[in-house]
Amino acid sequence: MAVIKVHGNRDSLATVLVLCCLNEKELQYELVQVDLGPVGAQNKPQYLALNPFGQVPTIQDGDLTLFESRAIIKYLANKYKGQGTDLLGNNLSEQALVEQWCEVEGQSFYPLASSIVYETFVMPMSGGGGIDVAAEEKLNKVLDIYEERLSKSKYLAGDFFSLADLQHLPWTHYLMDACRKDRLITSRKHVNSWWKDISSRRAWKMVEIPL
Amino acid sequence: MAVIKVHGNRDSLATVLVLCCLNEKELQYELVQVDLGPVGAQNKPQYLALNPFGQVPTIQDGDLTLFESRAIIKYLANKYKGQGTDLLGNNLSEQALVEQWCEVEGQSFYPLASSIVYETFVMPMSGGGGIDVAAEEKLNKVLDIYEERLSKSKYLAGDFFSLADLQHLPWTHYLMDACRKDRLITSRKHVNSWWKDISSRRAWKMVEIPL
Repeated sequence: MAVIKVHGNRDSLATVLVLCCLNEKELQYELVQVDLGPVGAQNKPQYLALNPFGQVPTIQDGDLTLFESRAIIKYLANKYKGQGTDLLGNNLSEQALVEQWCEVEGQSFYPLASSIVYETFVMPMSGGGGIDVAAEEKLNKVLDIYEERLSKSKYLAGDFFSLADLQHLPWTHYLMDACRKDRLITSRKHVNSWWKDISSRRAWKMVEIPL
Repeated sequence: MAVIKVHGNRDSLATVLVLCCLNEKELQYELVQVDLGPVGAQNKPQYLALNPFGQVPTIQDGDLTLFESRAIIKYLANKYKGQGTDLLGNNLSEQALVEQWCEVEGQSFYPLASSIVYETFVMPMSGGGGIDVAAEEKLNKVLDIYEERLSKSKYLAGDFFSLADLQHLPWTHYLMDACRKDRLITSRKHVNSWWKDISSRRAWKMVEIPL
């Protein structure tokens, strides 16, 4: 089997997400380093030919070139369903709930989590930033819903670890370790147990997070 | 076959998206009206039991209750693959490109389009709003990438209509008809042809859009 090429950078949480998924699926990969920055390699013609949006990561698997990290992990979970951890669910209803919670991550969790990370961790590096109170309030409400959900099932989509849980790893890690927003997680019994569980997975620990 | 229940409202573009998908799949449905508003039915216990986020739509198909419009249409396209329009692609690579462009819609197109619609159409109804110049500039750049893509394939994921195109219908319709931002589309040859094509589909015309 040809090795999957991942054009990306470990400083990018979207890249980290894809690497973690590759580990869960026990797939070999080659990380092709893309130097990031305002006029970095991601904005040069060679990379834009792979991904016109100039974002990392992009994978190459045989003839297929694919970007958007959430689409990449879904592709890997589908193509290599019989290998490593199953991340999709075993019937149409389970798969639908995985999709549902993946969308919750993409539309309700990620916009708030990323806003908080930028304001409290990224922007201060260049002298800016602040506390995004509105985003924190909204994220608290979202996590209250997670708490209720996780009081009824071990993972978001049911009693099985899936793409939906996996998608939460990189940004929650940054919220906790880079932004010291531990209380968002630890103040909620079931969310905290879930976080301890998913963040102790071998596939996640194998990713060398730059923090 | 039991009729699919759609708890929603035609004023919600996420509901409209799901209804259009049901039409493409030639599925019967019952629209259960949810009265929207600040203290509307979507925030009352009866509805929150279906969807704790208090957003419409939520569907019930047999024993399955499902929310998040993009997850719903993926479920419908999967479950009823052999019926109506195929919306997923015919092999793993095609499916992956559908997923990729669905993610582009959710992460790059929708946040900008919805911001423009709120500022120039929704907010002015209550005396607020303005012109979101930054969002328009960013959306122009995104649509330049669409133009390049659509110069090479008839639809976003390839030469077949898919969920990725479908997902663009409601918000593009509002950008054009409610916000008079026609130039975003008509100034680009291939984007304009694509829009004329997808917006003239019977399944879309069958949805009674409130504009």
